[in-house]
Amino acid sequence: MNIPKSNLPRVIIIGGGFAGIALAKKLKNKPVQVVLLDKHNYHTFQPLLYQVATGGLEAGSIAYPIRKVIHEHNDFYFRLCHVNEIDTKNNKIIADIGELSFDYLVIATGSKTNYFGNKEIERNSIAMKTIPQSLNIRSLILENFEQALLTNDVAERNSLINFVLVGGGPTGVELAGALAEMKNAILQKDYPDLDVSKMQINLVQSGDRILNTMSEKSSESAEKYLKKLGVNVLKNVRVTSYDGRTISTNTDLVLETATLIWTAGVQGAMVNGLPASALVEKVERIKVNEFNQVLGFENIFALGDIASMLTEEYPQGHPQVAQPAIQQGKLLGENLAKLLKKEKMKPFEYNDKGSMATIGRNKAVVDLPKYHFHGVFAWFVWMFVHLFSLIGFKNKAVVFLNWVYNYIRFDREGRLIIRPYKKKSFTSFTFDEF
Amino acid sequence: MNIPKSNLPRVIIIGGGFAGIALAKKLKNKPVQVVLLDKHNYHTFQPLLYQVATGGLEAGSIAYPIRKVIHEHNDFYFRLCHVNEIDTKNNKIIADIGELSFDYLVIATGSKTNYFGNKEIERNSIAMKTIPQSLNIRSLILENFEQALLTNDVAERNSLINFVLVGGGPTGVELAGALAEMKNAILQKDYPDLDVSKMQINLVQSGDRILNTMSEKSSESAEKYLKKLGVNVLKNVRVTSYDGRTISTNTDLVLETATLIWTAGVQGAMVNGLPASALVEKVERIKVNEFNQVLGFENIFALGDIASMLTEEYPQGHPQVAQPAIQQGKLLGENLAKLLKKEKMKPFEYNDKGSMATIGRNKAVVDLPKYHFHGVFAWFVWMFVHLFSLIGFKNKAVVFLNWVYNYIRFDREGRLIIRPYKKKSFTSFTFDEF
Repeated sequence: MNIPKSNLPRVIIIGGGFAGIALAKKLKNKPVQVVLLDKHNYHTFQPLLYQVATGGLEAGSIAYPIRKVIHEHNDFYFRLCHVNEIDTKNNKIIADIGELSFDYLVIATGSKTNYFGNKEIERNSIAMKTIPQSLNIRSLILENFEQALLTNDVAERNSLINFVLVGGGPTGVELAGALAEMKNAILQKDYPDLDVSKMQINLVQSGDRILNTMSEKSSESAEKYLKKLGVNVLKNVRVTSYDGRTISTNTDLVLETATLIWTAGVQGAMVNGLPASALVEKVERIKVNEFNQVLGFENIFALGDIASMLTEEYPQGHPQVAQPAIQQGKLLGENLAKLLKKEKMKPFEYNDKGSMATIGRNKAVVDLPKYHFHGVFAWFVWMFVHLFSLIGFKNKAVVFLNWVYNYIRFDREGRLIIRPYKKKSFTSFTFDEF
Repeated sequence: MNIPKSNLPRVIIIGGGFAGIALAKKLKNKPVQVVLLDKHNYHTFQPLLYQVATGGLEAGSIAYPIRKVIHEHNDFYFRLCHVNEIDTKNNKIIADIGELSFDYLVIATGSKTNYFGNKEIERNSIAMKTIPQSLNIRSLILENFEQALLTNDVAERNSLINFVLVGGGPTGVELAGALAEMKNAILQKDYPDLDVSKMQINLVQSGDRILNTMSEKSSESAEKYLKKLGVNVLKNVRVTSYDGRTISTNTDLVLETATLIWTAGVQGAMVNGLPASALVEKVERIKVNEFNQVLGFENIFALGDIASMLTEEYPQGHPQVAQPAIQQGKLLGENLAKLLKKEKMKPFEYNDKGSMATIGRNKAVVDLPKYHFHGVFAWFVWMFVHLFSLIGFKNKAVVFLNWVYNYIRFDREGRLIIRPYKKKSFTSFTFDEF
């Protein structure tokens, strides 16, 4: 890989997510050369992907060019690539654009959708972990509606406008709420020649409550809000198969749908090359100590979703959300500087700021360490926390204006099928025509 | 096709461009059933495509959902489809989603890129007539830069950052200017480890002046502005071949480039089924009389780019730009109402409001019927005319805010490679990974 040699030790960061970016910022003009690698040239603000999927925000509003983050950093390089392997013996990484040696390596590859080994569901469903996937969902919703207009077969039509979301975590809950808003405010108006009241939004949860990482009160409130919006919340139901038409479950329930959106779980986005002893099987995470050092290595670190740091409070590792990633990234920035000076590193302590989820246009549930609240005020809190977490003044301003507009007008303008999702489409379009 | 029967005569409009939308608006709640067909579910504001291509605006800012235009129209239907053929004998159209009979048919399919029969150039170049194409150009520019970082081969690197635009009309000129701004304001900062000064923007024009549909003064000013921005304006050069690496011309000039953007001409986007006698060969337009009636038919009309209405002032037909399309669409709305009442239709008279083009961040040339001006004031005029021509309050507001931001900050935030253009990429990504 074409990176100039430097007199400073080289830190390679794999991944420009919350952890990688937090670390990169901390390393600004520190006595290291930094090489940041990602397969996208932008940072994604994942908590708002569901708004891109439902046309409330444009993709550009929740993405930020990585090169802009590191504009003013000295001896800092970004490369767009996919890392295939880590060679721990020779301290180098092997990417599709070449090899590069490191003094320190930071693995911050995040997580990816977990289908728990079910290849059939993986093939026939759609996930929402990236911006292109969110745009695919947006196209798919609209394509389904356009297609529903073309058929006189009631079963087919109902299947096209039946949206099944599997997984009752924050992603599934927020997407279900936004879909319900879309149904009520947009689709009814846009499709006067279709009986939009027949549109179903089914949220399937394997456990006995949705948002099961939050308080029971939040679960209850969220379920109440969703039901009010017309979402069917199906608990204690585990999806066992989906052939693209019919969902079977571990109960008597069978759902006929053209669309299964899978938000039921994540696993680490693993990079090859680490010894099996350093890995947590099944969840695909990497064992790290309290300094985020990978088990068995002094110069290799893992951060965020991919890192499994076991503590008394978190015997399964920290939750795979933004906060632990950001906090670990920041701390490692300081610890690397200490390490270079042969000072003692500071162990990580997670400061749980709480968690929240929004449901529909103006409700949310918020769990703070000591308080719990829900409703419109919670939604305000949710809104401002997310707004201020976005990188960049312009993204903040554009998102805020969009939200104000969408709120006042009951509107979402992003209902454009820019890239059709159904390649083998119901029409004869080919991708190249677009 | 699944359209309810109506007691009113049915008007089918093929195409939701400037002409089709202007007509649709005029037909609101007139005593006709209207069926609007388009292969996209949005109207595209084509004059600003170059800003999407260069990251100044998001796609959603210059597109407008067609269904939103016709929200409050009675007996009005939209279908997303591709029309394959017109059956003039049986008064019906044949689309990929089925057939539909009409009482009146309006062909407003617009125009598409004209490669003048050169299949090799068509295969290896990229055009800018649609939003997906503009997004492809945006991705391609950034992908070229990322790729240029990976090579030590100077010739290859220079070829990757050499952008050749063929065609010196408004599209080529505006895109060249925006690319030059992008080079100066963005790429220099984003790629500190690349010698961005080596980036070339070559604008190739076959004739002896650019903007040859405008006044000579405008051509001169535009060329001066482009040169000041660092664009090479190559006149009296006709591109004869391009194999993806080397451009040959009818002169000694040879250009080595990875990117040819073809803006050299358009032709009508023809629909099959009309008799040859009604067509203008080569340019693929449809002969219409002063009421936009297709030659030989009373109930079939053609509007805008696809229509060739010969007048004394326009012996080759009207220019293929927005204004004639909008004016013809509006007039046909009135004339159809007259036709239904058996009243006399009004002949079309083109009201030439002038033409303009913008060059770079704050210059433009404007030709009004009686005046010509250029420079910063012309740019203000250009900006407000385009702003007010956009459909929808939100699009106006968002575009305006973006322009203010881009102007003040010398920035364009849309530098995200959301969908990579190079499918057989320099990396090993496959499309599905994104």
